[in-house]
Amino acid sequence: MNQLYLCSINEARYRALLEAAALPDLVLTDSVQDATIILADPPKLAPRIEKATQLQWLQSTFAGADALLSKPRTDYTLTNVRGIFGPLMSEYVFGQLLTLSRHLPHYRDMQEGARWSPISYRGLTGKTMVILGTGSIGAHVASTARHFGMKTIGVSRSGKSVTAFDKVLPTHHITTALSDADVIVSILPSTTETKGIINLETLSVCQGAILFNVGRGPAVEEQGLLDALDAGYIQHAVLDVFCHEPLASSHPFWQHPSITVTPHISAESFPEQVFEIFADNYRRWCNGEPLNYVMDFSLGY
Amino acid sequence: MNQLYLCSINEARYRALLEAAALPDLVLTDSVQDATIILADPPKLAPRIEKATQLQWLQSTFAGADALLSKPRTDYTLTNVRGIFGPLMSEYVFGQLLTLSRHLPHYRDMQEGARWSPISYRGLTGKTMVILGTGSIGAHVASTARHFGMKTIGVSRSGKSVTAFDKVLPTHHITTALSDADVIVSILPSTTETKGIINLETLSVCQGAILFNVGRGPAVEEQGLLDALDAGYIQHAVLDVFCHEPLASSHPFWQHPSITVTPHISAESFPEQVFEIFADNYRRWCNGEPLNYVMDFSLGY
Repeated sequence: MNQLYLCSINEARYRALLEAAALPDLVLTDSVQDATIILADPPKLAPRIEKATQLQWLQSTFAGADALLSKPRTDYTLTNVRGIFGPLMSEYVFGQLLTLSRHLPHYRDMQEGARWSPISYRGLTGKTMVILGTGSIGAHVASTARHFGMKTIGVSRSGKSVTAFDKVLPTHHITTALSDADVIVSILPSTTETKGIINLETLSVCQGAILFNVGRGPAVEEQGLLDALDAGYIQHAVLDVFCHEPLASSHPFWQHPSITVTPHISAESFPEQVFEIFADNYRRWCNGEPLNYVMDFSLGY
Repeated sequence: MNQLYLCSINEARYRALLEAAALPDLVLTDSVQDATIILADPPKLAPRIEKATQLQWLQSTFAGADALLSKPRTDYTLTNVRGIFGPLMSEYVFGQLLTLSRHLPHYRDMQEGARWSPISYRGLTGKTMVILGTGSIGAHVASTARHFGMKTIGVSRSGKSVTAFDKVLPTHHITTALSDADVIVSILPSTTETKGIINLETLSVCQGAILFNVGRGPAVEEQGLLDALDAGYIQHAVLDVFCHEPLASSHPFWQHPSITVTPHISAESFPEQVFEIFADNYRRWCNGEPLNYVMDFSLGY
């Protein structure tokens, strides 16, 4: 019998989904020490990971599991969720991008004063989006960019070509990519290689690009971004992730006129979708098949 | 020699484009009486249409030419611009729709107070968009809706099937379509048949849909919309066009908490794109070929 421990802000919904699914040979336990399998939000479980002495497999409910990957412990199989965040991430990026390019805050302000005040704009067609990270989320965002007539350049470790990107460059050519960018979208995970990769030096090749960070906070060097905004390399930054979350109320990002801050909502883990991935992986686990979306502790994603 | 009269808020740009293109056998005239060909914004030219006694062909710079179609005069060829507004209209509709569905105004307000306050949302995947008008603009908006995983239902006079729509219903079945709608987008022109077609009765089959009007104002019966908002049939209306533009500052739409007002900016006529259509039509005119995008005075579009 497999002992499952649940640890999520959505625990009640996962409990209901588990009851409805009635997975074979699986019982819930309230004791992390007894668990052989864990289904968990990484930041919520991380402080207790050492107590899970029987743990064999942990299914993360998030795409990003840096809270666990940064711990010394690596003697278990860690899987994450993939393939479900691309559409939500596209919604966020294009909702925010079109808000800026079509001046929606201006019209909201004008409406308060009952003022009819059209201002000119340019469409997205023909503009260039550079996407850092070419996995399933990056490829989906690229496909949306293409739908809106944009050119798409990807940046990844390998530089291998990926469908939906006009071209993909390896990380050491990041400034070549950024110098063409009207819009930059970072979907990078938090690893030693990505830490601070978006900084004053790499951004200094830009001419007024719009920067999104929807991956993980540490990819952006915070003071470097503020300096790049001052210098005009970046005209606006839309930030959903930060080095420390929640972002401290005293942080300069909040009040900066050219920064949009949102509280890590670009792609929510909906329990129904996460549970489908867990249930499929559990079936594989019981049958001794390889699990989907196994993370690599050495690569960090 | 063809005599061209220009009448547009973008006259200077059209003049520059004309000079650069150096179209054969064409001279500009400053006298509307002498013009055989006119390139014009319909509302700007309309008061002077009767003076253009030599007029043979008028190229509208807008998609909607109701300002001219509503005049008694029909003894000339009227062409409009098509095929260039779809992408801009999609940008507007999805920029506004994602702003609502992803609660961007909430986060803008929270940012002012440096407050980290995530709220839940649902993605667009699986929702249904009903599009009134299945021409090139409607079909483009439908293709964007599909990209975001939405179901698409069209409503048109004929009910003929059109690519990018899951199904198309004829106008007399409009309430069947609207009863399934999460989002309604009107791209209808202003004709006797479309006048007030969106009213309290047709909207009463809805359950909290979001309504867009990006076609022409008179398609929406204004008091009916206000009543439908009160009754909850419509949860929010995004209006870019109105019966009388500019919208009077005393109009109740401006201050309504569930109405977003913008000043007819959903799809701007960019002179460069309009001029391409004019130049191609001028070549056809000189060669005696049929012109593109000829409007029908009896249908009104």
